Amino acid sequence: MIYFDNAATTPVYPEVLQTYTEVASRIWGNPSSLHNLGSQASRILEASRKQIAELLGKNSKEIFFTSGGTEGDNWVIKGVAFEKAHLGKHIIVSEIEHPAVKEAALWLNSQGFEVDLAPVDKNGFVDLDRLEALIRPDTILISIMAVNNEIGSIQPISAISELLADKPTISFHVDAVQAIGKLSTDLFLTDRVDFATFSGHKFHSVRGVGFVYIKSGKKITPLLMGGGQESDKRSTTENVAGIAATAKALRLSLDKAQEQQKKLTAMKQILLQELDSYQDVTVFSGMEEFVPNILTFGIKNVRGEVIVHAFEEHQIYVSTTSACSSKAGKPAGTLIAMGVPQKLAQTAVRISLDGDNDMGQIEQFLTIFKQIYTNTKKVR
Amino acid sequence: MIYFDNAATTPVYPEVLQTYTEVASRIWGNPSSLHNLGSQASRILEASRKQIAELLGKNSKEIFFTSGGTEGDNWVIKGVAFEKAHLGKHIIVSEIEHPAVKEAALWLNSQGFEVDLAPVDKNGFVDLDRLEALIRPDTILISIMAVNNEIGSIQPISAISELLADKPTISFHVDAVQAIGKLSTDLFLTDRVDFATFSGHKFHSVRGVGFVYIKSGKKITPLLMGGGQESDKRSTTENVAGIAATAKALRLSLDKAQEQQKKLTAMKQILLQELDSYQDVTVFSGMEEFVPNILTFGIKNVRGEVIVHAFEEHQIYVSTTSACSSKAGKPAGTLIAMGVPQKLAQTAVRISLDGDNDMGQIEQFLTIFKQIYTNTKKVR
Repeated sequence: MIYFDNAATTPVYPEVLQTYTEVASRIWGNPSSLHNLGSQASRILEASRKQIAELLGKNSKEIFFTSGGTEGDNWVIKGVAFEKAHLGKHIIVSEIEHPAVKEAALWLNSQGFEVDLAPVDKNGFVDLDRLEALIRPDTILISIMAVNNEIGSIQPISAISELLADKPTISFHVDAVQAIGKLSTDLFLTDRVDFATFSGHKFHSVRGVGFVYIKSGKKITPLLMGGGQESDKRSTTENVAGIAATAKALRLSLDKAQEQQKKLTAMKQILLQELDSYQDVTVFSGMEEFVPNILTFGIKNVRGEVIVHAFEEHQIYVSTTSACSSKAGKPAGTLIAMGVPQKLAQTAVRISLDGDNDMGQIEQFLTIFKQIYTNTKKVR
Repeated sequence: MIYFDNAATTPVYPEVLQTYTEVASRIWGNPSSLHNLGSQASRILEASRKQIAELLGKNSKEIFFTSGGTEGDNWVIKGVAFEKAHLGKHIIVSEIEHPAVKEAALWLNSQGFEVDLAPVDKNGFVDLDRLEALIRPDTILISIMAVNNEIGSIQPISAISELLADKPTISFHVDAVQAIGKLSTDLFLTDRVDFATFSGHKFHSVRGVGFVYIKSGKKITPLLMGGGQESDKRSTTENVAGIAATAKALRLSLDKAQEQQKKLTAMKQILLQELDSYQDVTVFSGMEEFVPNILTFGIKNVRGEVIVHAFEEHQIYVSTTSACSSKAGKPAGTLIAMGVPQKLAQTAVRISLDGDNDMGQIEQFLTIFKQIYTNTKKVR
């Protein structure tokens, strides 16, 4: 089996699953309980928070656990909007945000907010001038993803941070779900970023755990209210085992990130060169300004799902851009936003690599690709 | 160790944790992925949903997975409010709801809704006449818990269902977190109930998984928007391993529920008789109309946390009413709502049993209790 769909989800590292089962079976007290089963659990919880904070170069008090990226994105978008509604009701998110950001923002229209979508250029990057032009005195929140999940373009978070340097009343949120471990943290977690969203299962942790970075002093209305956990910012009995597993997965991922990025770059380079050499192939991802693990391409006149299923017969797993929209059969929203014609956008196939993939798999992939390309000749 | 804090959380059943680890390590595809790793995961997900639905006597399409009870409660309260705001903006929740319901409802005040708290009588039961008197033409939602988490009183869900029989425009939500497995499902999941919330870790599943029953045809605004999972009602990559584990935990719990309820009743009866025989003990929970696993009491002039820590020295774990409010040192909200004076309410200690506890543990508990009672004599 060759798994090239790591942007959808990653397998749990065995040692991460071991941490999970150990904590789940041995430290199962409720951290809110007064007795020492509770304090045992609470200590694991806080040690995990500290580890994650240190790995990100942040303070423990700035890390808040969630059930994943979607909750994190919804929380920040809605929570900042409700918190700051008295200051203004204008929000900007990029046109190519993950639906967890985009849908949450668009829903706020029904609650009296105004939402503008910042456009991207033809290569899939937020256009700085056009973003700046959208900013108004009543803009309270800007949300831009660090790395696009459909084509892997790295968004200009540093440049946007500079743009917002003299606009302190605007909260700046970065969806970092596809970025962590794929590029240096300081490139997307700048000092100007107020909120950032992360998801464990994208870096080999268990499903159902994520966290949000909230810069010290920044206010947000909770999405989950109740028992007052997470400094009253996010209530619910804490998933201590999942959180401990996530801290471990993040450490393991970041430990090998630099080395893996080199390996990924080498693998992607080969893929890109080879795929680009086919006449009827369009490659939508580049090398520079793109993460090294995502490469999206299409074969002229062949719908992406046809290619996905053709590879599947050889136990090679790729996807039609994002997993989230693949079942709905929607064309890649990012490509449409880039101005790619609908018919071409529907050909999109996303390869998303992991550091555990190797060059042998790339070669096998390319061999099978050649067959599939030949087999689809009659429709091109 | 004697663990009598099962209303806070329960240990994961070993076979449930095994299901979790098996699925997490073997069926780790993203259910939304088009390829067969995705469909494998999707099949497990749907089989789990079907199993839970059947155990509750409901339809698969009426079960929606969440990250736990707090998310479920917040989702229903806010989701129904936002969905039905154009029909009315009046909501009723009982005075003794879990903070996940109460705080979510009270927050809606800031969004233009009006919230009334339905009072309880001196024994901790929602007063039907006073509830009825609160209903207005613009009431859109009533939320009443099935079983109170602080004293174990079973709320009159059937009677409220009758009361609401001719008021079809009012959505009826039941927080069933403390009820499942502790009393017969038909007593709290009546045909009139539109929404009900459940949490896995209260019945020996892993942390971070719950589900909401939504009666077929009932509309609700999502709390987590995004990729469109769970029939577009609750987005996020599904925690398939946790969900499969939860289905198994529910089956195991309900399989032995009847037998365990008898055992729990016998154990609680002994506890109640014995504790009641101490002059300075007040017992706040009864037998009739109370679940058989919860018994809350207090020793005159002795704060609950003193008793919790005294038992802890003997590795016996009880709690000061709910885990959620215990760290905040708040007196039990339910007792205050019942009209118990603040000073007496602060003495509250909650014993919450599990079917895996046994009579030997009850005897040990009572022996230690006698010592503690004697030791606190000087302050009484």
